[in-house]
Amino acid sequence: MSVIIDQDREGLPRDGYAVIGDWGTSRLRLFRVEQGVVTARRDGPGIGAVGGAAALALAEIIAPWLTDGPPRCITLCGMVGARDGWVEVPYADCPADAPTWRQVAATFDWRGVPVRIMAGLACEGADGVPDVMRGEETQIFGACLHDPALGQGRHMIVLPGTHNKWSLLEDGRVTAFHTVPTGELFALLRDRSTLAAKVEAPDPAEEALGFAEGLDKAGVVQLFHSLFATRSMRLRAGRSPDWALGYLSGLLIGCEVAEMRATLGEAAHVVLIGDKALSMRYARAFGAQGIATRLLDGDACARAGLGYGGGDGA
Amino acid sequence: MSVIIDQDREGLPRDGYAVIGDWGTSRLRLFRVEQGVVTARRDGPGIGAVGGAAALALAEIIAPWLTDGPPRCITLCGMVGARDGWVEVPYADCPADAPTWRQVAATFDWRGVPVRIMAGLACEGADGVPDVMRGEETQIFGACLHDPALGQGRHMIVLPGTHNKWSLLEDGRVTAFHTVPTGELFALLRDRSTLAAKVEAPDPAEEALGFAEGLDKAGVVQLFHSLFATRSMRLRAGRSPDWALGYLSGLLIGCEVAEMRATLGEAAHVVLIGDKALSMRYARAFGAQGIATRLLDGDACARAGLGYGGGDGA
Repeated sequence: MSVIIDQDREGLPRDGYAVIGDWGTSRLRLFRVEQGVVTARRDGPGIGAVGGAAALALAEIIAPWLTDGPPRCITLCGMVGARDGWVEVPYADCPADAPTWRQVAATFDWRGVPVRIMAGLACEGADGVPDVMRGEETQIFGACLHDPALGQGRHMIVLPGTHNKWSLLEDGRVTAFHTVPTGELFALLRDRSTLAAKVEAPDPAEEALGFAEGLDKAGVVQLFHSLFATRSMRLRAGRSPDWALGYLSGLLIGCEVAEMRATLGEAAHVVLIGDKALSMRYARAFGAQGIATRLLDGDACARAGLGYGGGDGA
Repeated sequence: MSVIIDQDREGLPRDGYAVIGDWGTSRLRLFRVEQGVVTARRDGPGIGAVGGAAALALAEIIAPWLTDGPPRCITLCGMVGARDGWVEVPYADCPADAPTWRQVAATFDWRGVPVRIMAGLACEGADGVPDVMRGEETQIFGACLHDPALGQGRHMIVLPGTHNKWSLLEDGRVTAFHTVPTGELFALLRDRSTLAAKVEAPDPAEEALGFAEGLDKAGVVQLFHSLFATRSMRLRAGRSPDWALGYLSGLLIGCEVAEMRATLGEAAHVVLIGDKALSMRYARAFGAQGIATRLLDGDACARAGLGYGGGDGA
C-alpha cells in the first residue's frame, strides 16, 4: 500500500527513509516514509503486550527495512510515551497548540538513530476532573495539516474508539477534551450482559434496522429508560439478536452524542477522526440530530501529525 | 425470626400451616405461616439453578416441616411461574389491580396439597416497548396491604435490584412499569471494566465520599460525561479505588433517578421496596433531588402479597 502525504513534504527526510508510527496499548502501526511518500507499512503488537521490551520489539518489527541501512529518524506517538511504555514523556497541558505540544516531545538516541516520542495532552475540566490522551493529539494536530481551515474558528473533533475523545479545537489550540468510554461500555453490554444475545455474524440488514431504532430512541429519551428494550424487544416483540446488537449500538452512540453536545456546547464544525465504520455510526448519530460532520482517516491524520513533528523537519 | 403479618389474618389457614415463598431466578425464600404468624424460614436455590426439577427441589426444602404433616397450601410468586419455572403462569396485563392479578394465578394439586403460583405483570410502554415482571408485583400489591393509603392517588414504587422496576400505582392499579438494568450495569463496570479497580472490602468512609460525589455529578450532568472520571480521578487526582466504587454507584443511581423522574413524571409519593442497603442508596439519590421517599421491607411486602392472594383465603 502506498499513500501520498500531500503536505509538509519538507518535513520528511529527502535521503534515506524515516520511520513513523502510532504505538498504542493494543497495536503498533508503523510506516516507512521516503521523500514524503509512505512506501511500506508494518503492524505489530501493542505497547501493552511487549512489557518493558519496547526497543527489542521495535527492532524486530523494522528488521526487514534495516537491510537498506538504519532509518534517518524514528518518530512515534501513543502509549509508547506512557509510564509503562518505552520512555515516559510528559503531557502538554491544554490549551495547547501544535508548536507547544511538539516542544514537549522526548528525543533520544537509539543505536545511532534519533528517536522522538511525541507528548500526550492533559487537561482539567471546569469541574476539576482531570483527563489525558496519548496518540489522539497527533491525529488532531495532523488533521489541522490536512485541512488548514481547522486552524481557525471553533471545531468539535471526535475520535471514536474504545475510549472516545471529544475535543474542542479553537483557533488551532486544543482548549478542552473529554474521554467517554462508550466503546468499552458497548463491548461489556454486548458480550457479558443479559441484554444482548451472542451473535457470531450479525445480519447487516437486521443490525442496521436496530441501529436506526436505537438512534430514534436516543433522540427522545435517555439511556436508562431505553436500555432494557434491548432485551425485552427480543423476548416479547420478536426482534432478533442481530437487531438487538444494532439497537444497543444506536442507543449508546445516540445518547452519547446528544449528551456531549449539550455538555460541551455546539461547534460550527464537527470532524470525526478514526476507524471508518465506527466514524460512520457517529456521523449518522450526529445527522439524526441535525448536525453535519466530516470524516477524516485516522491513520492519515496520525501520519500527518508525525510527519509534521518528526525527525529532520521539525 | 418471627414476623407478625398484621393484616389479612383471615387470608391464612387457622389450622395447620401454610407455606408461602418468593422463588426468583437466583434464590428461594420460603416462609412457614401459622395463624398469620411466620414461624419459620428456609432459603433455597433459585429456580434458575434447579432446571426442570422445581417440585423435587421444593420437596427437599420443606422436608423438615413435613414431620408435622403436609401444609394446608403452598403459594409462590416469582420466576417459578416463568416458562422455565415449575408451571408457566400467564401475565396479567396492565393496568391491573390486585383482584385482577390474583385471578390469573395458576392453581393445581401437588401430592394432595393445593399449590398456587401467582401471575406476573406485563405492560406496553407508550412507545410500544413491552416489559414484564415476576415477583415484584406481589411486593407492590403487598405494600398496598401494608399501607392502605397506597390504594388511592398516584405513587411511584421503585424496586431496586439487578433489574430495577419503576412502577406507577394509580388508585390501586399498576398502570405502567419500566425495567432499568442499573444493577447489572454497575456490576459489569465494577467487575469487568477499566474504570474501577478491584477492592476486596471497600473502606466505608471512602466509599461514602465517592457516592456523595457521584450523586453530585448526576445532578449537573449525565452519565456519559462523568463516567470516565471513575478512572481519571484515581489515576490523576489521587482518589482511592474505594472512592471510585462509591462514585460509580452514586453516578449511576443519581443519573437513573434523574432520568426516570423526567420520563415517568413525578408522583406525590415515592416508595422504595427491597434490600435495605440498596434502597437507602436510592433514598439518598431522591433526597439529593429534593424528593422524599419511604422504605418498605421487600420480604415483608412479598409475604403480605402472598398472604393476601394465598391458599384458603383468596
